[in-house]
Amino acid sequence: MANIKLEKKILSRNDMLAAELRQQFLKERVAVINMVSSPGSGKTSLLEKTLEGLSRELSIAVIEGDLQTANDAKRIAVTGVPVHQINTGSACHLEAEMIRKALDHFNLKDLDLLIIENVGNLVCPSAFDLGEDLRVVLVSVTEGDDKPLKYPAMFHTAQLMVVSKVDLLPHTDFSVDAVIENARSLNPGIRILQTSCRTGEGLPDWNQFILSLVESSRHPIG
Amino acid sequence: MANIKLEKKILSRNDMLAAELRQQFLKERVAVINMVSSPGSGKTSLLEKTLEGLSRELSIAVIEGDLQTANDAKRIAVTGVPVHQINTGSACHLEAEMIRKALDHFNLKDLDLLIIENVGNLVCPSAFDLGEDLRVVLVSVTEGDDKPLKYPAMFHTAQLMVVSKVDLLPHTDFSVDAVIENARSLNPGIRILQTSCRTGEGLPDWNQFILSLVESSRHPIG
Repeated sequence: MANIKLEKKILSRNDMLAAELRQQFLKERVAVINMVSSPGSGKTSLLEKTLEGLSRELSIAVIEGDLQTANDAKRIAVTGVPVHQINTGSACHLEAEMIRKALDHFNLKDLDLLIIENVGNLVCPSAFDLGEDLRVVLVSVTEGDDKPLKYPAMFHTAQLMVVSKVDLLPHTDFSVDAVIENARSLNPGIRILQTSCRTGEGLPDWNQFILSLVESSRHPIG
Repeated sequence: MANIKLEKKILSRNDMLAAELRQQFLKERVAVINMVSSPGSGKTSLLEKTLEGLSRELSIAVIEGDLQTANDAKRIAVTGVPVHQINTGSACHLEAEMIRKALDHFNLKDLDLLIIENVGNLVCPSAFDLGEDLRVVLVSVTEGDDKPLKYPAMFHTAQLMVVSKVDLLPHTDFSVDAVIENARSLNPGIRILQTSCRTGEGLPDWNQFILSLVESSRHPIG
């Protein structure tokens, strides 16, 4: 009982801070993406392809979240894009306070787009708003098409589902129709893209999606 | 600070209860396996193959842990093996107390082996002892060979790492040597098996490993 109360207090503090971050991002006209998924669904690979495709036309920065290691930040750093690694230690998710501190490493005024790669975890990050415009959940075709039903909060709170590693479809029992049906049963409005970083399939659609998001952030309504 | 204190208290209560469960399992001479991994690494598939291979010679029961759905319990029930599904709601791991309650659904005296399939999560379950004899962590070859370094607690606390879905190796950049090196850098004594539920590779070794574990539980030392 005390545990639940404390959890609610932490979440409510996080929500307040996330709302402040959202205001700040809006003011600076920076689009912000929060990438979430299981470990190993291909978040960093998709991020690398995104930077390859868009870093000439957009000013992008990246925040990497992991329990340990700066492996992902190193992978991103070679692209020349500014990147900051957060190591959460034993925490299974990023929180708005960590993002607020990480912003000291960037000049928001110069950015079009900030991409946050969350800790690989289909449970905990769902409850923590980071002030993002877009929460994208990846599910790779090797994980099974039932994942939305088993981890509903994550698929319920995302605006976009990326079905990744579709080049492996012929080697799995994964049904794209089933994963779409499962995701939409929880979240009827969720957008869906299918990608493969190995073949390049779906990457132009993904890039176009991001360009539209950045465009909306430059000309916010209201 | 209050959060850390509360977490310690919950963990210490869990450890006490897990120790009681371990005593009970020892007394009843039941071997207990706790299977952990990312979502979609193939725990349920390996479990199905295990029951197929061993349920004629061993008396086995299964506890399934998921946030939502009884999908996995249904998959196991068709094998005829007794199974109980725990739905954790929003909790990212199983706890000893949940196992204690689930035991009401089985007659421990009649069992050789109890297999617990934990919630798919590479972070949270690492801190919660369930009284098991063997903690086995699966890592599928599509997840990347750096996973032990990024989720060290899980690989540090497991006695066995199963590298799963090795049939997909030709379609990935995964290095089996690298994942072994990474796991052993954290846990030098960790045992390693490579399996594919599609081709059957490694399953005889896995079954043999389990038979030895059950044999040790029947004739405990001391």
